[in-house]
Amino acid sequence: MSRTVIHGGLVVTASDEIHADVLIEGGRVAALAAHGTDAATSWSADRRIDATGMYVLPGGVDAHTHMEMPFGGTYAADTFETGTRAAAWGGTTTIVDFAIQTMGRSLREGLDTWHAKADGRCAVDYGFHMILSDVNESSLKEMDRLVAEGVTSFKLFMAYPGVFYSDDGRILRAMQRASGNGGLVMMHAENGIAIDVLVEQALAEGRTDPRYHGDVRKVALEAEATHRAVQLARVAGAPLYVVHVSADEAVDEIAAARHKGLPVFGETCPQYLFLSTDNLAEPGFEGAKYVCSTPLRPREHQEVLWRGLRTNELQVVSTDHCPFCFSGQKEMGRGDFSKIPNGMPGVEHRMDLLHQAVVDGHLSRRRWVEIACASPARMFGLYPKKGTIAPGADADVVIYDPGAEQTISAETHHMAVDYSAYEGRRVTGQVRTVLSRGVPVIEDRAYVGHAGHGTYLPRGTCQYL
Amino acid sequence: MSRTVIHGGLVVTASDEIHADVLIEGGRVAALAAHGTDAATSWSADRRIDATGMYVLPGGVDAHTHMEMPFGGTYAADTFETGTRAAAWGGTTTIVDFAIQTMGRSLREGLDTWHAKADGRCAVDYGFHMILSDVNESSLKEMDRLVAEGVTSFKLFMAYPGVFYSDDGRILRAMQRASGNGGLVMMHAENGIAIDVLVEQALAEGRTDPRYHGDVRKVALEAEATHRAVQLARVAGAPLYVVHVSADEAVDEIAAARHKGLPVFGETCPQYLFLSTDNLAEPGFEGAKYVCSTPLRPREHQEVLWRGLRTNELQVVSTDHCPFCFSGQKEMGRGDFSKIPNGMPGVEHRMDLLHQAVVDGHLSRRRWVEIACASPARMFGLYPKKGTIAPGADADVVIYDPGAEQTISAETHHMAVDYSAYEGRRVTGQVRTVLSRGVPVIEDRAYVGHAGHGTYLPRGTCQYL
Amino acid sequence: MSRTVIHGGLVVTASDEIHADVLIEGGRVAALAAHGTDAATSWSADRRIDATGMYVLPGGVDAHTHMEMPFGGTYAADTFETGTRAAAWGGTTTIVDFAIQTMGRSLREGLDTWHAKADGRCAVDYGFHMILSDVNESSLKEMDRLVAEGVTSFKLFMAYPGVFYSDDGRILRAMQRASGNGGLVMMHAENGIAIDVLVEQALAEGRTDPRYHGDVRKVALEAEATHRAVQLARVAGAPLYVVHVSADEAVDEIAAARHKGLPVFGETCPQYLFLSTDNLAEPGFEGAKYVCSTPLRPREHQEVLWRGLRTNELQVVSTDHCPFCFSGQKEMGRGDFSKIPNGMPGVEHRMDLLHQAVVDGHLSRRRWVEIACASPARMFGLYPKKGTIAPGADADVVIYDPGAEQTISAETHHMAVDYSAYEGRRVTGQVRTVLSRGVPVIEDRAYVGHAGHGTYLPRGTCQYL
Amino acid sequence: MSRTVIHGGLVVTASDEIHADVLIEGGRVAALAAHGTDAATSWSADRRIDATGMYVLPGGVDAHTHMEMPFGGTYAADTFETGTRAAAWGGTTTIVDFAIQTMGRSLREGLDTWHAKADGRCAVDYGFHMILSDVNESSLKEMDRLVAEGVTSFKLFMAYPGVFYSDDGRILRAMQRASGNGGLVMMHAENGIAIDVLVEQALAEGRTDPRYHGDVRKVALEAEATHRAVQLARVAGAPLYVVHVSADEAVDEIAAARHKGLPVFGETCPQYLFLSTDNLAEPGFEGAKYVCSTPLRPREHQEVLWRGLRTNELQVVSTDHCPFCFSGQKEMGRGDFSKIPNGMPGVEHRMDLLHQAVVDGHLSRRRWVEIACASPARMFGLYPKKGTIAPGADADVVIYDPGAEQTISAETHHMAVDYSAYEGRRVTGQVRTVLSRGVPVIEDRAYVGHAGHGTYLPRGTCQYL
Repeated sequence: MSRTVIHGGLVVTASDEIHADVLIEGGRVAALAAHGTDAATSWSADRRIDATGMYVLPGGVDAHTHMEMPFGGTYAADTFETGTRAAAWGGTTTIVDFAIQTMGRSLREGLDTWHAKADGRCAVDYGFHMILSDVNESSLKEMDRLVAEGVTSFKLFMAYPGVFYSDDGRILRAMQRASGNGGLVMMHAENGIAIDVLVEQALAEGRTDPRYHGDVRKVALEAEATHRAVQLARVAGAPLYVVHVSADEAVDEIAAARHKGLPVFGETCPQYLFLSTDNLAEPGFEGAKYVCSTPLRPREHQEVLWRGLRTNELQVVSTDHCPFCFSGQKEMGRGDFSKIPNGMPGVEHRMDLLHQAVVDGHLSRRRWVEIACASPARMFGLYPKKGTIAPGADADVVIYDPGAEQTISAETHHMAVDYSAYEGRRVTGQVRTVLSRGVPVIEDRAYVGHAGHGTYLPRGTCQYL
Repeated sequence: MSRTVIHGGLVVTASDEIHADVLIEGGRVAALAAHGTDAATSWSADRRIDATGMYVLPGGVDAHTHMEMPFGGTYAADTFETGTRAAAWGGTTTIVDFAIQTMGRSLREGLDTWHAKADGRCAVDYGFHMILSDVNESSLKEMDRLVAEGVTSFKLFMAYPGVFYSDDGRILRAMQRASGNGGLVMMHAENGIAIDVLVEQALAEGRTDPRYHGDVRKVALEAEATHRAVQLARVAGAPLYVVHVSADEAVDEIAAARHKGLPVFGETCPQYLFLSTDNLAEPGFEGAKYVCSTPLRPREHQEVLWRGLRTNELQVVSTDHCPFCFSGQKEMGRGDFSKIPNGMPGVEHRMDLLHQAVVDGHLSRRRWVEIACASPARMFGLYPKKGTIAPGADADVVIYDPGAEQTISAETHHMAVDYSAYEGRRVTGQVRTVLSRGVPVIEDRAYVGHAGHGTYLPRGTCQYL
Repeated sequence: MSRTVIHGGLVVTASDEIHADVLIEGGRVAALAAHGTDAATSWSADRRIDATGMYVLPGGVDAHTHMEMPFGGTYAADTFETGTRAAAWGGTTTIVDFAIQTMGRSLREGLDTWHAKADGRCAVDYGFHMILSDVNESSLKEMDRLVAEGVTSFKLFMAYPGVFYSDDGRILRAMQRASGNGGLVMMHAENGIAIDVLVEQALAEGRTDPRYHGDVRKVALEAEATHRAVQLARVAGAPLYVVHVSADEAVDEIAAARHKGLPVFGETCPQYLFLSTDNLAEPGFEGAKYVCSTPLRPREHQEVLWRGLRTNELQVVSTDHCPFCFSGQKEMGRGDFSKIPNGMPGVEHRMDLLHQAVVDGHLSRRRWVEIACASPARMFGLYPKKGTIAPGADADVVIYDPGAEQTISAETHHMAVDYSAYEGRRVTGQVRTVLSRGVPVIEDRAYVGHAGHGTYLPRGTCQYL
Repeated sequence: MSRTVIHGGLVVTASDEIHADVLIEGGRVAALAAHGTDAATSWSADRRIDATGMYVLPGGVDAHTHMEMPFGGTYAADTFETGTRAAAWGGTTTIVDFAIQTMGRSLREGLDTWHAKADGRCAVDYGFHMILSDVNESSLKEMDRLVAEGVTSFKLFMAYPGVFYSDDGRILRAMQRASGNGGLVMMHAENGIAIDVLVEQALAEGRTDPRYHGDVRKVALEAEATHRAVQLARVAGAPLYVVHVSADEAVDEIAAARHKGLPVFGETCPQYLFLSTDNLAEPGFEGAKYVCSTPLRPREHQEVLWRGLRTNELQVVSTDHCPFCFSGQKEMGRGDFSKIPNGMPGVEHRMDLLHQAVVDGHLSRRRWVEIACASPARMFGLYPKKGTIAPGADADVVIYDPGAEQTISAETHHMAVDYSAYEGRRVTGQVRTVLSRGVPVIEDRAYVGHAGHGTYLPRGTCQYL
């Protein structure tokens, strides 16, 4: 069994900062020992990694990606191969992607399709959530089976009528089922029925530019749907995880529910923390690069999101990675913002952007690791295998250089998309080396991994409750 | 022009308590003069009514009645003739009833049908709200015309899918239209889509008794819909009037909206103030008598409603009068609570029950008159013609004996329904004499009115804003 | 008995707008009759006032004035003679001034002193609140007697340690006593103990200009004291009236208490609605003109106060009239803002400024009359004698020209103070004629009153509960 | 250097549950290794502790004790010797006690006195907070020096006028100082000035039994003081730690402050979680055993406290250990509850009672360790030396038997007090062995420690921000 020692670094977990060497046996963390102790110095190893001056972090867990997702007649530009490789470059060693049920078909069929897309292609480990497009007696029964075999979370949409939309009755039924089988309902919380009226009116009035995407998807309609999802979950006696929270009032709804003791959780994404409607309003058709739903919000919402992350009103930062090339894809929406594919690239930059938040004073180091690694792993039943550095955990380890500086750019990124939402942004901190189950994937900023290293992760039920 | 003087009484309006004689010329209040002044004593009159020891009140305005309403294959038991006569017995001289648009037909056709039902039959004056069952381009345009001709309020339903239900997009469109034409949207705020799931489940599990009607129509689902209606109205820039608020959490939603300065109003009804789920749970099938939607709530909600009425978080008490006989009508739901026609009799007892609340210390006398007469008149564009006693107002006047005692009973009431929801309840206070536009309808507790005295009231737009 | 008829005007009360003539017999309103009715046209009169195109309003009730008040070694510049005359010019026909208990002396002695100041000097009627400086067994007992004889409200200070300040124990005792005897505790709610620390620090650091007066009297410390007063009143089971509310967060505290059903009331003043810290920061020593406590707040607080007035979270607008001349009085604080006498002139302009708010769309006409006339009268036991126009009420009547334009200026005002806080401000609307108990005080913009016409008003207990 | 290995147990920290052996070198944790790994099996050791089936926990940190505290003419019954021994018995290896400044004397003198009491007597490590009785220029300056030398937290009292009470000005000054020097203000938040009025009234009316202690110290007055402390801290820009939170409304105040992003923290104690006013009302004079301040509350407050602990609205559970014997001490208050010494024993049972909460489903295991070990260590600058099991941390380790059952009783406890507040209560879980810096203090339920092993802990500043 191969042994690796990472020595000299500062191990940062969600709760501890430890000056310790890390011993890896096989694919697992075997031991941690304080620098310079007999225990540490006595370790023999096949490979020694010097982490002096570096952080030694658990690999990032990105609980919200959409590789190769079909949307509006096209597909998200990253395959599981390119997307997980980019994830690794950015220090993320686990993704949980969304398998999609096709309307009128079984969950199983959707899941099989996604397995086929991912199998043998991933650079790092992956699991699946299931998008429930068609809630009926049959799909409700399938939920039980999927939970049993490790697909333990189910996404429903209050937006996108005619596509993914479920009405409140279907949502309630799915939540009731989840309440019984331990599944976690994830909610896209926007009132899509009302939004579609505003979309139609905007287009009819010639308001067709990308920035109107932000206009019509109103804060009040995200807050409304969030409140409604909370009430339905309360009726069902089920926990609720609200994805991509972007609006201050939505944070308030989640906070109010949590204050009442309800098991309600919230996720936000780097784009809501670092970008704003200013980007959507960039001249020409540039704003299309930033079209995603929920939409970017005015800049003042950012501080509320940071505060929510600090106070644990929000628990997770994922990327909602769903890249579409500007050329050929985003351009489908010229003259009609509603035709712009919804989604942005991001899987590569989550850890770095959040480290920048540490540098900027928004977050502590431990909280960084918590929201990016430990909490998503706990939320989605991957803990303690993923999300921490502790004896017994998978040796998904990132050696992170907190002082390195880099400039984010489409020129240099590894995602299969022709633009960066953060083009030209300087950030401090960079991934140096990444191990996945003890095996190097990135080594001193070189990709040494391979498609197919990453394996499928059946997941347990939510451990965050 | 006939002259009537009401002398010796205490005139109570929403803001004043005045020891004054009232002079009526023709159908209008011509003057008020302090008892014993030269002005008062100099009045000649054709008729003198001695109100010594009595209150002299503006006639009640019941802004929520359903005479002869079709529901679930039957009709509400009171016709406009019997219903308005009962209203008069109870001191109510104006009703605003709901004309119903049939799905697929025009508003006009519905309104014409209701005009035909009421015309020539009413004992007191009446106006119409319009129930919008089918929101589409054509009906939206009709809204403008109806506002112009005096039907200025439009009820929408978030409950009753397949019957009156409008989805959030239709609601938003109707609110936008109302925002432009001065109409007021009235909302039945319950999440009917979710409730119907619970209904189906309850019936499937054998929970078929009337009390399960209260179980499935959950407080959380009234609060949810109330919150949603507020947010949609906010997006539309429109005012909102929530009908028959019964749940504490719904009051909280309205209060929160009002605290933000939004033009949101709330109505409750005597049944929510005086009855509770205890009644729904009465043995046998007796609970069916109390089936209405929103449903009766546990007793502790009553105090929140009283408090809301005192703090003006709720502005209006109407009856939602919609009586179905126990025998032959309510009985349709034996073995299936969902088949019990929804509705209760009440138009006759609103003023008395609210006076009892004055006796019990829940309300002041002025607030009694405000929530039962002045505010509904203002809310629905009938002020100052209706709702107050002031020079120029219609001489709709009630001589009320605050010390009389009575027992409410189906034996003695005048509504065309075979039971009373308040059977056996002793209350203090009773109507003695009622004038409608100066003409006696009730005189010393005898009915002296006639069908057809009551005339149709075109209404102005909301004056409460 | 002399008879006056005011004809042709629009009578505006807190709840009604009536096209009616008003008949005054002796000092009282005898009757109202609709224009053109037999009743109206038959009235003979000694004096006829043509109010065509005018509003006919109840005389204003200013429930918060400080005539000749000693403060910081000087006296408020208006005597009861000059102050009540200026009040009349501005359409205010009742003031309630504050008699002050001197520390170590009895309430009686303080009250006698104030009676001596006012007796025979007032142009309009007046009553007294009592400032409780020294809460002890003896003064608590005196409270009962004062309530019995018509001094039914008692002001306490959480600010001004060493002067008027009462600690929380004294406040609690006074509230308990009020709870028993029907008195109403009025509270100056600022944490004066904490503020004095900030004052000392500001002065020590050379921050001595008037604008630092606003800096040190922090929003958080007004909100804190408001919350504390509410909690103490809750413990005592007593109602609470918070004077001169200026901060958004203080409004929120009052609103929260009211939502809980607590009998908590709030007053604001024109200076908080129309002026701001911008004025305090005027160059030179000009800011001293605007020094009062609670202080002026940043401009954004104004909208919250307007909203509070519209939603009845705030019930009363008084002036806190307490004028000090710039020359010789305000100047005492050059180089030390803490020595600037606290207070501003305002008794003359309240009705006009609030009418401007009607013109600007902040308030309805009825709400204007409610907050300026009816509610203060009710709050302080003067209703229906004062605050409305109804048969039986005192004939305190203002003929108000809603279209007249005027410019506020020290050149033209009638208060005995050398500056105006609203210098140069154009407002629409002006008092034309004022009757006090039927007797003209202002007639077509000429002062025709005299010192001593105004009589003392013993008051009943709070009627607003 | 001695080596100890603890093998076979489940290491539970605030964030992880690890099946790992623990290697201790000298007084520190040197390494953790997964059971059965080469790393683990290769360890030689002087002492091996078999923890199979046991939890291996960081030693408890009790951040709120009062050993030998003078109060009302007597002293808390536990000395540092008996108290820290009892702490060890209960799995607590660190206490932070309160040194008291005597009015008119320096902080230094008070601190020296407490050092003298503790030095050479403690079974486990200890630190000191400082009670600021006398805030003045001199004591404010001393605060800076104390922070520099490791006394980094300062308790102030809004209760106990004439004893520990500070007025709001002194509180503000201390907070401002703390804001500058990194100190943390701890607040006893009860409005003592108001409470003393109620005490005096209760005694005067013959309400002298212990249960009136709970009556007069009202929920509203704890909530009030909590709100006030928050506002003062906000003005000062300082963090705030509220001690012994007992009332639901006080939790709400803390939650509201945290939602706004303010650095406000709350502690509760086992007595508020497990006991209630029912105990205070025990017959005879038994209720005296439960007299402490803040007082026990009605039972329904418990669920709010548990919820607050789960949602991190409350962060720490300490004991406020301050025992007085029933005989001779509590009895001082017969016939006058205000003379009953305030305080209860508890240092020995905190870990067990909170484990019972794990068994009962109130808390997760990790949250148990977080609120009892990690968070108090972080809050008071002892982390990661104390509060976790990680390489480099002090080897304060508890071997805890989660299945053992015990009955709490004065017969068997080790605190120097003649009663138990939990007499006869059965709990599941018991400490088996305790190490302090690697040295056994309790070994297989035998005391093997000695007075003087425990050393003084200079502390860093708050790490929880």
